[in-house]
Amino acid sequence: MCDICVMNAVKDKMLSRRQFFTATAAAGAAAALSTTAAPPALAAGASTVEDLTHTLDADFPTYFGTPGIELEQKFNFADNGFNLFTMDLNEHTGTHIDAPLHFSADGNAVDEIPVQDLIAPLCVIDIAARAAEDADAQVTPEDIKAWMSANGDIPDHACVALYSGWGAKTGGDEFRNFDGEAMHFPGFHVEAAQMLIEETGAMSIASDTLSLDHGPSADFATHYAWLPTGRFGIENIANLDKMPASGATIIIGAPKHRGGSGGPARIFGMV
Amino acid sequence: MCDICVMNAVKDKMLSRRQFFTATAAAGAAAALSTTAAPPALAAGASTVEDLTHTLDADFPTYFGTPGIELEQKFNFADNGFNLFTMDLNEHTGTHIDAPLHFSADGNAVDEIPVQDLIAPLCVIDIAARAAEDADAQVTPEDIKAWMSANGDIPDHACVALYSGWGAKTGGDEFRNFDGEAMHFPGFHVEAAQMLIEETGAMSIASDTLSLDHGPSADFATHYAWLPTGRFGIENIANLDKMPASGATIIIGAPKHRGGSGGPARIFGMV
Repeated sequence: MCDICVMNAVKDKMLSRRQFFTATAAAGAAAALSTTAAPPALAAGASTVEDLTHTLDADFPTYFGTPGIELEQKFNFADNGFNLFTMDLNEHTGTHIDAPLHFSADGNAVDEIPVQDLIAPLCVIDIAARAAEDADAQVTPEDIKAWMSANGDIPDHACVALYSGWGAKTGGDEFRNFDGEAMHFPGFHVEAAQMLIEETGAMSIASDTLSLDHGPSADFATHYAWLPTGRFGIENIANLDKMPASGATIIIGAPKHRGGSGGPARIFGMV
Repeated sequence: MCDICVMNAVKDKMLSRRQFFTATAAAGAAAALSTTAAPPALAAGASTVEDLTHTLDADFPTYFGTPGIELEQKFNFADNGFNLFTMDLNEHTGTHIDAPLHFSADGNAVDEIPVQDLIAPLCVIDIAARAAEDADAQVTPEDIKAWMSANGDIPDHACVALYSGWGAKTGGDEFRNFDGEAMHFPGFHVEAAQMLIEETGAMSIASDTLSLDHGPSADFATHYAWLPTGRFGIENIANLDKMPASGATIIIGAPKHRGGSGGPARIFGMV
């Protein structure tokens, strides 16, 4: 097929937004093209955009077990003609970012995370079956090797996400799963973090639980291995069951308050 | 060109992420295809992703003239081994969303805005030249008609954005531009909002100033026309000068706190 052939097709065939993501599957055909045709709009109304964000309220489970957000209504429509709230917010609440600064003296704050790491290939490692048997299950180097055997190399800038099925538990005590001495939920083993650092170009890891480390961790080993390298994390990510193991793109709407150690983020997954 | 021709090309040509957005310009060629080829990752590292978000701190200008965010450091790395802040935050601070609930009794809260309206075609109406002469300049129906004459219809779900050049003023008093009696900055004329409601499928409007209404407005006419219809707004959007008039996609990382009237958002523009 010659490039002229493709360019003529660009003129001939119109692309609806709903068709866009199907169309991108074949965009490789045009990689070498230079064309002045305008790009189609992305995915408005497409069924292939998923919200990977939990709704945040004072009942959402937190690592410390106390409410992470409190809203106060300062103006209300009946009396003032408009509604407006202020909020008292712990940065590490709900679906949120751990910036490098969270576990380092002078790492990048949340507003300093490079934009090219916020729109990235998404790799989902599914340990839900193991986590159903063992709440303290961890992603290990073996899990990463198995993922690569099935899906190929982990792309540069990738976000490597842990799917444990924990997202379905946010409405109850089983999300923190505190037994009086420790919490119990899945996380990344420190050796998995080290492998991603040493052998891949991944720039973020995401967990569908309260922490990058598994619940009983007493030393935050994964946090200390990962974040000081300039990479960042996502905790309490939602709806990973709707994402494929590979081929999706994550869009990480990190907050941008100056000097922050993290904060609630709006996250989308696109297939 | 036959579909087989395109499908063979999918197999033959590999697409790097940096090339993806160039490639999407020709994605229309493949709109009618059914293929099992995996979609390429979106734009990691691409130069065609722009951050449309201002960095937020206590010095960022606010409508009421008082700081919109206050951080308090609860844990610090030297003493505690990690950094963590809480924040006291006014929802309508920095680059942020006005949800329908902001100016209605029972409109959608910020967590209820449909995802398909958060990833949308971006239409930029440039009134910077006029605003340089008249700080109270407004987007009018004539501006919308001129945009459509040059760029075609406004797409369904679109975000229609006002570029006034005000984003360059956030470091000083000229952003609020308060003269002792009123503020002076550009906004949308209520008749422009009404035209968009009645004649287009636009679902959001965005301003690079402190308000959807222009500074001297005493009645929030545009807020009251637009938000109660279920549409939403964006205020203090950044870097619209880096976006084309048409053809870009806006990704609106709206916050997702339950029942909120709006809040700081991370917003990207993709070309």
